[in-house]
Amino acid sequence: MEGWAGKRIRVDLTSGKIEVEALPLEHLKKWIGARGLNSEVVFKESSQGMDPFSPDNPLCFGVGPLSGTFAPSSGRVTVSARSPMTTPHGHGDTNMGGHWGPELRYAGYDQIILKGKADKPTYLWINDDDIELRDASHLWGKDSMETTLAMTEELGDPNIMITCIGPAGEKLVRYACIINTFNRAGGRTGMGAVMGSKNLKAIAVRGSKAVRIARPKEFFDMCKEARTRIDSDPAVKMMQAEGTMMLFDMANGIGLAGAYKNHTTGFAPGIEEKFGGVVHMKKYLHSREGCFACPISCGRYTYIKEGPFAGTHFGGPEMESACNLGPRCGTYDWEPVMKMVQNCDLYGLDTISTGAAMSWAMDCYENGLLTEADTGGIPFVWGDTDTMLKVIDMICNREGFGDLLAEGAIRAAWKIGRETEKLVPHCRGLEHISCDPRTVTGFSLGYAVSTRGSDHLKNMSCLEFPPAVGLYQDLIEEVLGDQAKDFLEAQPNNLIHIETKPKLCKWSEEDKCIADMLGLCCFPSAWWYPLRPEDLTKLFNLATGMDVTSDEMMRISARVVNIERATWNREGSGRNQDVHIDRYYELPVQDGPYKGAVLDRKKWEKAIDEYYRLHSWDKETGFPSNEVLKELGLDFVAEQLEKARKEYLKKK
Amino acid sequence: MEGWAGKRIRVDLTSGKIEVEALPLEHLKKWIGARGLNSEVVFKESSQGMDPFSPDNPLCFGVGPLSGTFAPSSGRVTVSARSPMTTPHGHGDTNMGGHWGPELRYAGYDQIILKGKADKPTYLWINDDDIELRDASHLWGKDSMETTLAMTEELGDPNIMITCIGPAGEKLVRYACIINTFNRAGGRTGMGAVMGSKNLKAIAVRGSKAVRIARPKEFFDMCKEARTRIDSDPAVKMMQAEGTMMLFDMANGIGLAGAYKNHTTGFAPGIEEKFGGVVHMKKYLHSREGCFACPISCGRYTYIKEGPFAGTHFGGPEMESACNLGPRCGTYDWEPVMKMVQNCDLYGLDTISTGAAMSWAMDCYENGLLTEADTGGIPFVWGDTDTMLKVIDMICNREGFGDLLAEGAIRAAWKIGRETEKLVPHCRGLEHISCDPRTVTGFSLGYAVSTRGSDHLKNMSCLEFPPAVGLYQDLIEEVLGDQAKDFLEAQPNNLIHIETKPKLCKWSEEDKCIADMLGLCCFPSAWWYPLRPEDLTKLFNLATGMDVTSDEMMRISARVVNIERATWNREGSGRNQDVHIDRYYELPVQDGPYKGAVLDRKKWEKAIDEYYRLHSWDKETGFPSNEVLKELGLDFVAEQLEKARKEYLKKK
Repeated sequence: MEGWAGKRIRVDLTSGKIEVEALPLEHLKKWIGARGLNSEVVFKESSQGMDPFSPDNPLCFGVGPLSGTFAPSSGRVTVSARSPMTTPHGHGDTNMGGHWGPELRYAGYDQIILKGKADKPTYLWINDDDIELRDASHLWGKDSMETTLAMTEELGDPNIMITCIGPAGEKLVRYACIINTFNRAGGRTGMGAVMGSKNLKAIAVRGSKAVRIARPKEFFDMCKEARTRIDSDPAVKMMQAEGTMMLFDMANGIGLAGAYKNHTTGFAPGIEEKFGGVVHMKKYLHSREGCFACPISCGRYTYIKEGPFAGTHFGGPEMESACNLGPRCGTYDWEPVMKMVQNCDLYGLDTISTGAAMSWAMDCYENGLLTEADTGGIPFVWGDTDTMLKVIDMICNREGFGDLLAEGAIRAAWKIGRETEKLVPHCRGLEHISCDPRTVTGFSLGYAVSTRGSDHLKNMSCLEFPPAVGLYQDLIEEVLGDQAKDFLEAQPNNLIHIETKPKLCKWSEEDKCIADMLGLCCFPSAWWYPLRPEDLTKLFNLATGMDVTSDEMMRISARVVNIERATWNREGSGRNQDVHIDRYYELPVQDGPYKGAVLDRKKWEKAIDEYYRLHSWDKETGFPSNEVLKELGLDFVAEQLEKARKEYLKKK
Repeated sequence: MEGWAGKRIRVDLTSGKIEVEALPLEHLKKWIGARGLNSEVVFKESSQGMDPFSPDNPLCFGVGPLSGTFAPSSGRVTVSARSPMTTPHGHGDTNMGGHWGPELRYAGYDQIILKGKADKPTYLWINDDDIELRDASHLWGKDSMETTLAMTEELGDPNIMITCIGPAGEKLVRYACIINTFNRAGGRTGMGAVMGSKNLKAIAVRGSKAVRIARPKEFFDMCKEARTRIDSDPAVKMMQAEGTMMLFDMANGIGLAGAYKNHTTGFAPGIEEKFGGVVHMKKYLHSREGCFACPISCGRYTYIKEGPFAGTHFGGPEMESACNLGPRCGTYDWEPVMKMVQNCDLYGLDTISTGAAMSWAMDCYENGLLTEADTGGIPFVWGDTDTMLKVIDMICNREGFGDLLAEGAIRAAWKIGRETEKLVPHCRGLEHISCDPRTVTGFSLGYAVSTRGSDHLKNMSCLEFPPAVGLYQDLIEEVLGDQAKDFLEAQPNNLIHIETKPKLCKWSEEDKCIADMLGLCCFPSAWWYPLRPEDLTKLFNLATGMDVTSDEMMRISARVVNIERATWNREGSGRNQDVHIDRYYELPVQDGPYKGAVLDRKKWEKAIDEYYRLHSWDKETGFPSNEVLKELGLDFVAEQLEKARKEYLKKK
């Protein structure tokens, strides 16, 4: 087979049984790879009401047909399972860069599915055709860096790629992440906790096989051309220079430094003085880092040379880590914030949910809804970075109040009561990133309808931002068609102009899913747009020898989105959860240029209607209609949803 | 003749004599047009030590061979004379947009030269071949809007284009500007005061002649193609959307909101909350305005609907007007700042020098160097916009302390003494714009060597800004050659990396001069770069039937720069003035991401050496060498400089 390995590994951690399973071409054509392959398994091999910490939860690591090839930015891996973080426990997944994914391809596999629970700490060691489970008791308790170093030494080859969890995953912190290649994180939805629940500390991979390409000469030429195009894209160039923090600097310039103080104000005063990409570059940037085969290499490596945090070094920070541990918690003191990012990476904690949990506590504390009687004497004061550093340790170790915060903000709020859940900015239990849903309504819609809870990496419509409007107007016109005029004329309010966003949202989710299925990073094709769906499709065709059109590829994406949606629907989550918390409809942005912006319930519901219409989903339930499921070849899904649909309507 | 009119008008206001003079092709080929034609006259027809307010000062209005054609953004005019604002009184000029320039072409002229002094207020009325001087006594004292409206009515045709001065020009405020087409300003170096000193209130023009193009079909095709390219340029698109304030938003995002409090701090805290392009668009933008034939149309029209400034409406604000009347004076209260911009336009005051004069007074007042005993009881407190509005009236009317400020900051400081001149951020008496010379060293070098005093529109190297680095890397590589690597690797410090700036500075000044000579705006070719020197040269060749290479065009630019430089040299201004005030070498940026940035004297002198070397100017004096003057066909300049060179060396 060309393009794909055509094989996947199944591991039963309870029995220790390891199987290699052939993946028929028909199946691969239907699900392409990575996220597509995983999402099918998560729906099919999990059941309604399943506890994500149960041994049955299928934990999948998937790579795509372009993983490990010369295709640009082809180092991504999707990790999927039912999420312990979300409410209900719907579809969870996370996408990570680094070098581990390509190595799995070189070992000859498209996917790993892990079920069961080992009786003691264990790691999986894949060395081409030799696959074994090994004792990891000596690694248990070690942080991600120590684990990676110890395993590298133990296995005796620095080219072995390691993905692991830190202590937070072992302790089932619901938002524990997975770390690979030392510091590339698969952060969201608690996949690290699922790994921990299976007593699986790490997966080490070494591969020496070739990836076969159907039309190598043309493929190489196209990759080369795509790289030139990426490298010439002005937005990409800014990202090469400044890393993802350039997004912060850009937004900040127009008064959009969101997430300040638990995502309330929509504006952070005076932040650019101390914080942001330029400050980082000037004082803390040690070097740049790239994931596998990436012409962008947005990764940073930080080294703090002097002062109380001297010696701190780590891969990052990404913009979202910085914003959620910084301004979201009322601080923009760079050095302690970076120390927190380092600790989260070492402990294996999602930086976004960690920041969200602490900022929720601070918001409650300020409003008298949480006192030291609840927190065991810890004052949660905005910007108190000393306390934050301590609390991160407590979360990781599930000590004292940290044990509650380890459940995630929404579960902590339920436990505390006193309507503190009203102060959790989230959808389906996953907290928002740093972009304010009142001012950037395309993101806002994406947060609500995303198939993993609030998220900016599945339905992101960054085309709505002023610089992108300038850069990719042709694409906007193509995507929005007759709505493009409305969108462009809405300037300067096109960020808050929700009317044109359903179309953008649906297009974005399918465009992004192509990259996810192929094993590519979103930055060159679904964040900035030097590459378009037709380019990715062409790369896919050249690698696999297939002959798919980009419209067909978008329909395959729709299949994946629909099956992920169905995993949620089966749990009773539909239109009832495609909504924001009340605060965003009631409390307008308090200051800055977007002062007064607030979500409008009527416009919101209309946008949801329109988004469903574009998807052919039921207006009442927000479930995919039987027709669309059948059209997408998801008859088995339609059958399972029948019962859930009835339950939903009954409850309603 | 094709491309040019081949004629200029000479007016002697003392005698009332008007002559139309043929411009031989050889002369036009040597000086191209507009700025080129004017600068030759300013050198040749003025003399060492001349008082700019003397009748002999030749006031020139010039348009170029592309003025009034379909070439993009071809509405610019250069106005030149010896400057009453600078110290010494060197070459002065200003460049303005609008629709007046093209009308002069349609009337059949390339240039107007005005000398002498009318015995009463007068205006010049050019109606194709009919040219007359008319009494303007009834217009004297009227503001620019009233004057334009009254003349339009009087002359009976709204298509008549009018350029005029306001009361500030009549009162010889040294930084009085010229206004055309209601609100397009020729702001700097006091050309409005020169007009006032001649008792010339306005020039009205109506033309009905064709502009003849040598190769019309190819010219039209090339213009069309150039317009598409401009329209697709991402930076241009941002400027279309936000106007020139986008530059502020962009810089602000990386902590570069300069000029705050008399240009000292290098950083304005929390400014994006209240100020900037997005805030303006959202609250005050009435409509967009374009100059003649401009695909960018960066002009704004403001209307304040409510509050104490309700009813304020005007064309603008430009970024520099806003920054110099706003943050430079310690305020970012948008509405009073816009009211000040409106008043400056009506009175005919340069917004930059007006803000600079007031911010100098505030700086002195804060430091106890200026007291109410000096100011006639006026407190000069940062951000006191009520007082600022009153002081602007006083400057315009030369009342009380306003009479002193009307002399410009440097002359006011000399009068006050107490070393207050140390607080005037200027070069050659003209105050800097809002960009901090410590953090943006290409601009910094440009300020110091510009041929009209501190300036950002002659030697601007905006290629050094992060977004431009991304957008135009190919151009950077072409311009900087073997220094490009150093420049690119200096990131994130390439703004303060002065070593590569001499080359950028010299290239920029010649590139920009091409646009100035042709009558084009700098934005499409010398600020953003969808068009390059070779494109402008091609447009020129197609319009005129000439066959000039872009290298030859750059040498013609060099000729213009050299003759402007010679006007300064003749006054004893050379290397002695290619320098910043001490403060920028001594006081580092006080806060924000560029904290600590300061000019280094050694590096500065090395950069100046290098800039001279690239120009073949004498290292000791900074005068053009005889060799380079002769090579540029400026033998007559070389002769006149001999004496000045000796005087300079003797003084030294």
